[in-house]
Amino acid sequence: MTNKQDSDAYKQKRKFFDKLLTIYGRKPVQEALQQPGIEIHRLHLADSNKPAAVLDEIICIAERQGAEICYHSKQALSRISKNAKQDQGIAVDLILHGYQQADAFLQNLPRQFELIALDGITNPQNLGMIIRSVAASGIAGLLLPTKGGAQIDPLVIKASAGALFRCPIIRCDNLHDTLSQLKAKGAQICALSSHATTSVKDFNPQGAAIYVMGNETHGVSDDIAKLCNQHLKIPMSNGVESLNVAVTASLLAFRSQI
Amino acid sequence: MTNKQDSDAYKQKRKFFDKLLTIYGRKPVQEALQQPGIEIHRLHLADSNKPAAVLDEIICIAERQGAEICYHSKQALSRISKNAKQDQGIAVDLILHGYQQADAFLQNLPRQFELIALDGITNPQNLGMIIRSVAASGIAGLLLPTKGGAQIDPLVIKASAGALFRCPIIRCDNLHDTLSQLKAKGAQICALSSHATTSVKDFNPQGAAIYVMGNETHGVSDDIAKLCNQHLKIPMSNGVESLNVAVTASLLAFRSQI
Repeated sequence: MTNKQDSDAYKQKRKFFDKLLTIYGRKPVQEALQQPGIEIHRLHLADSNKPAAVLDEIICIAERQGAEICYHSKQALSRISKNAKQDQGIAVDLILHGYQQADAFLQNLPRQFELIALDGITNPQNLGMIIRSVAASGIAGLLLPTKGGAQIDPLVIKASAGALFRCPIIRCDNLHDTLSQLKAKGAQICALSSHATTSVKDFNPQGAAIYVMGNETHGVSDDIAKLCNQHLKIPMSNGVESLNVAVTASLLAFRSQI
Repeated sequence: MTNKQDSDAYKQKRKFFDKLLTIYGRKPVQEALQQPGIEIHRLHLADSNKPAAVLDEIICIAERQGAEICYHSKQALSRISKNAKQDQGIAVDLILHGYQQADAFLQNLPRQFELIALDGITNPQNLGMIIRSVAASGIAGLLLPTKGGAQIDPLVIKASAGALFRCPIIRCDNLHDTLSQLKAKGAQICALSSHATTSVKDFNPQGAAIYVMGNETHGVSDDIAKLCNQHLKIPMSNGVESLNVAVTASLLAFRSQI
């Protein structure tokens, strides 16, 4: 094999693995596999699992799909699930076509698009609700950093009411870097803040816009706020200071449709 | 005193008591009393309470306001709080100017207004988020039945992030009756449903509109749905079937402002 072929094969492989999402826990895995059109790459089981009806059902679905089924020691399984406490001896790699890495998204930027970006959202209920609303809204996607916030876990999957498997999600390792790259390509980076002076109603972007939601208590972090070229507020009455972050994200995602 | 004076005095008293909201639990009461502009009618304490800094602080605020402080047996207190398990020996009657009964609201109907009405919302987190969004949105209020759904409790107060004390809330005993009366006065009664064919975007009411949110699992109940003269959906992408009910309520409450 030449170096060129080698590199192409690597890229193909990388592209494939970038579409994988690993989830764990018996109920979350069972419910995921019951979703219409779900694709399984590999099912991982701990060889210490005792027989259980839920496992039989999961194995049956995986076999029907022709998915690979791998048995591991409990310890090896927890390295796959990355959550020994909650994996319950099971994990599954799903192929999600709406799931991609930021560099892939950056390489094929649409001319006009909207994203919701999360900067340190820590509550799994909020993350799940945001995923549900972004998926339903039809905007280009959710920009979700791999660090510094809630990650996709059973609580998030539950709060998303299955929408996780249908949501366009763009993963990035470093939110600041990815937003900088998007800004360099002409996207408006908009921090949502109750202290902003411009109302979202007066902001009608031509081209691309990324709406950054900050942490539930502290808001958008300083370094991200500095990067933003827009600071937007949702107008509020009755002296209320802020909205739930999942509500704010939903208002932004849906505003052109309601 | 004449009968007329008697009846007027009764009405005044009734009007006053209709503005009272009783909340309980040490932390919820403490946080409520820390809200700017909060008015206390009566503070109720169990005489079995052991000394505690949080109680001292609460009593101090009540005394400063000149509020009546009443001591009760534990049992009598639980009849006031209506929640012996969670009252922690304390309850407070707050005077909330945004709080009223449906008959008072019906007597002074604005020409044009919007309400969010709840038909069997059971999750306290959802109720709290809805209260927060309705308060912030500036619409005329939240129509909240006294039965058949989550009631104002410490979890709801927490999820509302203090907005409960600033939210226009209209209480009714029977949602069907109140909606019928509103309909008779010309208001559009709109059920939100993912099965509806009209999109909210195409609905621009002249006059009054009440948006009814149904139960998290079963949606708007049959008898209420029959009463509605509009059935509206929020358009959804990616095969997502429904949104979180607090998100739906927030989209309706805010749609003219975003």
